[in-house]
Amino acid sequence: MYFYREDLINLIQPDKPDPEAAKVLQEALGGQFGEMRTMMQFSFQSANYRGKDKKYRDLIRGIFLEELSHVELVQSTINQLLNGSGDGGAGNTSPDGAPLDDPVKTGNPHHYIMGAQASLPVDAGGNPWNGSWVYAHGNLVADLLNNVVLESTGVLQKSRIYEMSSNKTLRETIAFLIVRDNAHQNAFAKALETLGVDWGKIFPIPNYDLNKYPECKKYVDMGFHNAQFNFRLDDTLIGEVFQGESPSRDGGTLQVVPPPKGYPVPTMPDMPNEHSPGLSDLNN
Amino acid sequence: MYFYREDLINLIQPDKPDPEAAKVLQEALGGQFGEMRTMMQFSFQSANYRGKDKKYRDLIRGIFLEELSHVELVQSTINQLLNGSGDGGAGNTSPDGAPLDDPVKTGNPHHYIMGAQASLPVDAGGNPWNGSWVYAHGNLVADLLNNVVLESTGVLQKSRIYEMSSNKTLRETIAFLIVRDNAHQNAFAKALETLGVDWGKIFPIPNYDLNKYPECKKYVDMGFHNAQFNFRLDDTLIGEVFQGESPSRDGGTLQVVPPPKGYPVPTMPDMPNEHSPGLSDLNN
Amino acid sequence: MYFYREDLINLIQPDKPDPEAAKVLQEALGGQFGEMRTMMQFSFQSANYRGKDKKYRDLIRGIFLEELSHVELVQSTINQLLNGSGDGGAGNTSPDGAPLDDPVKTGNPHHYIMGAQASLPVDAGGNPWNGSWVYAHGNLVADLLNNVVLESTGVLQKSRIYEMSSNKTLRETIAFLIVRDNAHQNAFAKALETLGVDWGKIFPIPNYDLNKYPECKKYVDMGFHNAQFNFRLDDTLIGEVFQGESPSRDGGTLQVVPPPKGYPVPTMPDMPNEHSPGLSDLNN
Amino acid sequence: MYFYREDLINLIQPDKPDPEAAKVLQEALGGQFGEMRTMMQFSFQSANYRGKDKKYRDLIRGIFLEELSHVELVQSTINQLLNGSGDGGAGNTSPDGAPLDDPVKTGNPHHYIMGAQASLPVDAGGNPWNGSWVYAHGNLVADLLNNVVLESTGVLQKSRIYEMSSNKTLRETIAFLIVRDNAHQNAFAKALETLGVDWGKIFPIPNYDLNKYPECKKYVDMGFHNAQFNFRLDDTLIGEVFQGESPSRDGGTLQVVPPPKGYPVPTMPDMPNEHSPGLSDLNN
Amino acid sequence: MYFYREDLINLIQPDKPDPEAAKVLQEALGGQFGEMRTMMQFSFQSANYRGKDKKYRDLIRGIFLEELSHVELVQSTINQLLNGSGDGGAGNTSPDGAPLDDPVKTGNPHHYIMGAQASLPVDAGGNPWNGSWVYAHGNLVADLLNNVVLESTGVLQKSRIYEMSSNKTLRETIAFLIVRDNAHQNAFAKALETLGVDWGKIFPIPNYDLNKYPECKKYVDMGFHNAQFNFRLDDTLIGEVFQGESPSRDGGTLQVVPPPKGYPVPTMPDMPNEHSPGLSDLNN
Amino acid sequence: MYFYREDLINLIQPDKPDPEAAKVLQEALGGQFGEMRTMMQFSFQSANYRGKDKKYRDLIRGIFLEELSHVELVQSTINQLLNGSGDGGAGNTSPDGAPLDDPVKTGNPHHYIMGAQASLPVDAGGNPWNGSWVYAHGNLVADLLNNVVLESTGVLQKSRIYEMSSNKTLRETIAFLIVRDNAHQNAFAKALETLGVDWGKIFPIPNYDLNKYPECKKYVDMGFHNAQFNFRLDDTLIGEVFQGESPSRDGGTLQVVPPPKGYPVPTMPDMPNEHSPGLSDLNN
Repeated sequence: MYFYREDLINLIQPDKPDPEAAKVLQEALGGQFGEMRTMMQFSFQSANYRGKDKKYRDLIRGIFLEELSHVELVQSTINQLLNGSGDGGAGNTSPDGAPLDDPVKTGNPHHYIMGAQASLPVDAGGNPWNGSWVYAHGNLVADLLNNVVLESTGVLQKSRIYEMSSNKTLRETIAFLIVRDNAHQNAFAKALETLGVDWGKIFPIPNYDLNKYPECKKYVDMGFHNAQFNFRLDDTLIGEVFQGESPSRDGGTLQVVPPPKGYPVPTMPDMPNEHSPGLSDLNN
Repeated sequence: MYFYREDLINLIQPDKPDPEAAKVLQEALGGQFGEMRTMMQFSFQSANYRGKDKKYRDLIRGIFLEELSHVELVQSTINQLLNGSGDGGAGNTSPDGAPLDDPVKTGNPHHYIMGAQASLPVDAGGNPWNGSWVYAHGNLVADLLNNVVLESTGVLQKSRIYEMSSNKTLRETIAFLIVRDNAHQNAFAKALETLGVDWGKIFPIPNYDLNKYPECKKYVDMGFHNAQFNFRLDDTLIGEVFQGESPSRDGGTLQVVPPPKGYPVPTMPDMPNEHSPGLSDLNN
Repeated sequence: MYFYREDLINLIQPDKPDPEAAKVLQEALGGQFGEMRTMMQFSFQSANYRGKDKKYRDLIRGIFLEELSHVELVQSTINQLLNGSGDGGAGNTSPDGAPLDDPVKTGNPHHYIMGAQASLPVDAGGNPWNGSWVYAHGNLVADLLNNVVLESTGVLQKSRIYEMSSNKTLRETIAFLIVRDNAHQNAFAKALETLGVDWGKIFPIPNYDLNKYPECKKYVDMGFHNAQFNFRLDDTLIGEVFQGESPSRDGGTLQVVPPPKGYPVPTMPDMPNEHSPGLSDLNN
Repeated sequence: MYFYREDLINLIQPDKPDPEAAKVLQEALGGQFGEMRTMMQFSFQSANYRGKDKKYRDLIRGIFLEELSHVELVQSTINQLLNGSGDGGAGNTSPDGAPLDDPVKTGNPHHYIMGAQASLPVDAGGNPWNGSWVYAHGNLVADLLNNVVLESTGVLQKSRIYEMSSNKTLRETIAFLIVRDNAHQNAFAKALETLGVDWGKIFPIPNYDLNKYPECKKYVDMGFHNAQFNFRLDDTLIGEVFQGESPSRDGGTLQVVPPPKGYPVPTMPDMPNEHSPGLSDLNN
Repeated sequence: MYFYREDLINLIQPDKPDPEAAKVLQEALGGQFGEMRTMMQFSFQSANYRGKDKKYRDLIRGIFLEELSHVELVQSTINQLLNGSGDGGAGNTSPDGAPLDDPVKTGNPHHYIMGAQASLPVDAGGNPWNGSWVYAHGNLVADLLNNVVLESTGVLQKSRIYEMSSNKTLRETIAFLIVRDNAHQNAFAKALETLGVDWGKIFPIPNYDLNKYPECKKYVDMGFHNAQFNFRLDDTLIGEVFQGESPSRDGGTLQVVPPPKGYPVPTMPDMPNEHSPGLSDLNN
Repeated sequence: MYFYREDLINLIQPDKPDPEAAKVLQEALGGQFGEMRTMMQFSFQSANYRGKDKKYRDLIRGIFLEELSHVELVQSTINQLLNGSGDGGAGNTSPDGAPLDDPVKTGNPHHYIMGAQASLPVDAGGNPWNGSWVYAHGNLVADLLNNVVLESTGVLQKSRIYEMSSNKTLRETIAFLIVRDNAHQNAFAKALETLGVDWGKIFPIPNYDLNKYPECKKYVDMGFHNAQFNFRLDDTLIGEVFQGESPSRDGGTLQVVPPPKGYPVPTMPDMPNEHSPGLSDLNN
């Protein structure tokens, strides 16, 4: 069973509204290597787990739990990028112009039609998230290898997204996720180490120095690339795998730690032009 | 942030393996009105919530939290229906026959190819779950109405699934979910009552006496059709909506209660023919 | 603007319930070469028509109008095949068995879960109808050639469906549609004749004698393979194309005629196990 | 059976070509809450109708008939927005530049590649229309509730589309559809009233004064928000439901009326650069 | 069995980077009438061929073989259009700006996120290639007619793409493909001529003078519109169909000829910002 | 450029018709880890290759070339399983029964409707092949890791398919592909070894002794698990990677060898009931 405390796992860095950044950041939410995929993939792998060696199950589930918070973080970041991206307008008075016209030309029009300037379960190209991207093969080595690929490609794509926008709201969240995906890459790589693999110097994928990105450096300095947050309210064997020398060239020691302290879940403004929430005359 | 205790929200009732029941039950997991849809829909609606009236957000999020446990419950139930559905075989010795041939003729072949006789993110027809089924309109009344429809159709389809199989494993889980979906139908209907709607006698949808299904009656007797479990570790305003007279003809008083005590998460057997988990010579 | 008279374009031949026939017949409704495709394709081609030569537009639209009735006919035929395919049951009393279990094993389970034993917008494999199958190229020759292929493949697939089932309900509707698709094949082939093509002896596709199928022979004897029904309430130039010698080896003269007299739209029985329509205590 | 008179249900207001408006307006044609969805959903619900209470079937079918005209109206409006959006060019002479280059940068490139600057069965994001969006549950209350949600979300999204563009061609058609969707919202809400629901003051959704939009006001003044056009050539019981006090705060009396007088179906210009219709040397 | 020599079937014409041209050109690769479709369609038709008349099978397979080279040519052309479209950057140093921001605003963002500024199996709208577009009906006349439509629509869409961009890289490849698709249109049209069809003057579709496009004229002068390259290492009967008078108004004699001499497969530059290939410290 | 010699890469073992085996074997053709995916993935990775180290490109392309033959082999195997699976019938005489009725109940109905009892671009569940399954990340390590996962999962799923059917036609082809996928698993694993990875004892995945399957043993005895066929007509650097000790516990030395001698491409019988090829009166 799942429990919740109303806290984001990381802060939302303010910057100017940016519908194009919002469009691109959707990849990290509803893309093939985004947080909805990791969340659902680890959900299926942990529920469908076969065999008695519970430490690997606890590892997979432990990362699944964090992905739930990542989904919420990316949803909130996209919302922040969209807030104020069009003239909020009056909504129920006659508009003189088309206050939403400009921002939607090169953004995702569904951000304005389907949602009230809010996140959607789609990728950067507007394609809806698809269950066929979730792999739970049931063979542990195949699943762990798939997870290494998933987390590595996640970092690769997020590194590219970082370089596609200078918006600070986007970069802060992406940088946090890059560092966390590095930790998860380490987790699954380490699990395969316990089964005999020596990764040499191929990690991290992609092959770069995280500290060159200033937003990443901050989280590396906090040790987030070698830590796994523990969201279990009961005991877990995750520490039997996630321990010892990092499999990455970045070195360091893997360690299970308590979750971050938490950051405020945003209260988002009304959006009259989007008829959101649209309660003005009703709710009294 | 999300936390976890390794407990299922309800028990898994044992019965004989039944791949056809497993195929049909996928609708309740990866179908348009299944638990993955409700989980993701309420995730997006709560993260994208606009406006200051937090009690509705807390209501939506509260039900989202329960859906996380429902996903796990249905995954585990499908797994139970598949366990033993083919000859487990020896896996790495030469087979004389085709031990998996019979069960897959009228089941979902992907249960045996993609997963190791385990649940998949697909519906009863084998179509993958799709993000375009998730609605978060941003207009509160539209969202609540959509949620009423979602939960009502969920009950309707689950009632039909109940009558499609006499397998006790399937029926126990479906019956629990029918009663819980009734509670969620009540929750969203009640939220619209606070905005002025009087539903008359249309609920529950479909129009039947839950007590006629013996497995449902047990949960009704426990008051589960009028209760909402509280999975929050901090405060919540959910009780400002979920209270008072039920909007259903079944009557009673809506009440926020602690979660169920929890039931064991199954440890599933090895499946050598499926090469699952496939660690025999590796993990030592 | 579109008008309606409550009449089916052809009769529904009674025979025993047959969920497997219903599953296969879905191809003629929601498949790539089914009636939803022809209906929408000709809708887009007539609305998007460019140029002054209205007779081709009137031809395309005239066939579009008939396809609307074909959609309704196949929906009703599938419904007839499903009516009574499971024990209707009591619905709101406790069932002793699983009255719907047997018929769904080799049928389409969504016929029992999504619809109340009724037609769906899907193909014989259960895949949903998709807009990417609709072609309106805007180049008249390309559109007409595509339509020839569409109608020819429609006949080909329906001839195969005819041979996949001996159910009379299925065969009567399929036979009517085969003969009508022959007429539409003739219509688009004739339109290309007016632009210079001589088809030799390749039509009809597939290459067979319609009269060998007894249900088809009846409609051929009525001249339905060379007739185009006129559903226009105003004038139309369709007769400037649909006239003269048939482009088919079957010969005869193409002729625009009034619509069939019409057949009763079925009133379908309640289905308590499916909670359909589910009004018993409400509607009074 | 379906009949046709070559008339649009509303006028096409001329304004400048606008490929971005055309892209966005596709949502009202091929989107999840667009006219293709309403048309097909009501088609399936009326064909699959169970039970003897024909007045609800006649209501659903009556609205289905109007949606056929709405599809044609939106197709024609998109075409009008695309006509002239690129240099028409010579087509079969050597071009000096790329006359279509500019307009396609922020429009939907398929409008220029797949169609000859004409409408497509896709949504504003370019995703093809999908049959899985059509719901015909077979349970009358569930179907009516779904239809209320469908029409309400249709109005909500169209109100947003209205504010996304100041193009008069787009706004006139969208305003007409907003008012008509209000009437259909009223129709399904009223049907649920006859089954016992009192909607309070939640309608219309979204919560605004239609008269603030000048194009809408014109149609409200004509009573179009409380009227249902009757496209039946035979008798119908629709008036037994669609009558009496409107369930909306806008008040007024629901009334079945004859269809509008009709407006000319456009004759669209040749588009040599698109090779449309491409008959110059052939058709003589 | 398939063999390979590292040569492109045509040259890549250099011009400036152009992400919008790359986006649009994807239609010719992963669109419904693009090279992946023709390649797979002819693969299935030749493998599934029934009957003894091998000359038609050899014709279909012969064109399939050429499509393999077309896929490679379009992939390479898209890559050329993307090379240098964003600041290559340093990749593993801290970026000051967002070097990829501008080019992706109106391009396909997946070109920068999923691939390292490289081709994708998607169409111009970003929709992934889909197997449901492949037709292998098994009826030879239906298959040949479908292939005529496929090649004709391919030319039609490519002619439109030509006019959508003045980029020389795009135009050279498109012009080559237009002329080759004309040859393939001729091939399938000729096959139907051997079965009795006289096409009159409808080909080529679209109806234009290829020589008006200067890039096309060059290939027409080389006779490429009436030639079929022979990629078979053993004997083939293709010449029994592909011979004699062209079915096109352009006239000439169809002739099977050896493949082109071949052009260099590009060696593409590193792309540090995309972490491609990302081997710098590893591969030594 | 691609060349062809009409030879299958392996023999088709005769056995009885088996539509259910045909349905399941589709996974190896059009499934997510089937031959169409491997073929297209390696096509995109080799065309999009960045950087100067050509030996990895030659490795990827070399395996791509073999996958082309695998696609043809699986197509032909499925066809063999379907040949004779229904009464061939007379086709153009009036059928007395429904000769295709029985085989389609638990097979894929599209094998009989869309194709003339022939292979389709779909998976075992009937879902069409999808381009979103193709990964060409552009980062060499990420691509190689993805390819290891792809080939490993391919072996895993094929091992399961082997155990799902005792049909010899299916088992012979699957066994050949299992051994070849082992070779390709070795190829990509070896490529990562050259970049520093030591795989320990995790390969082959799944973890079993190939020799326990008698059909596999035959190919292992021929050394096919450690060989890579060379389909290049020019020079290749593939041998710089594919050489030395196998990364698998099965040991042995990797070696580039000439292609197999080739096996006859089947000439398939007419199928009159399917109207295939349907040329009887035309082609003379």
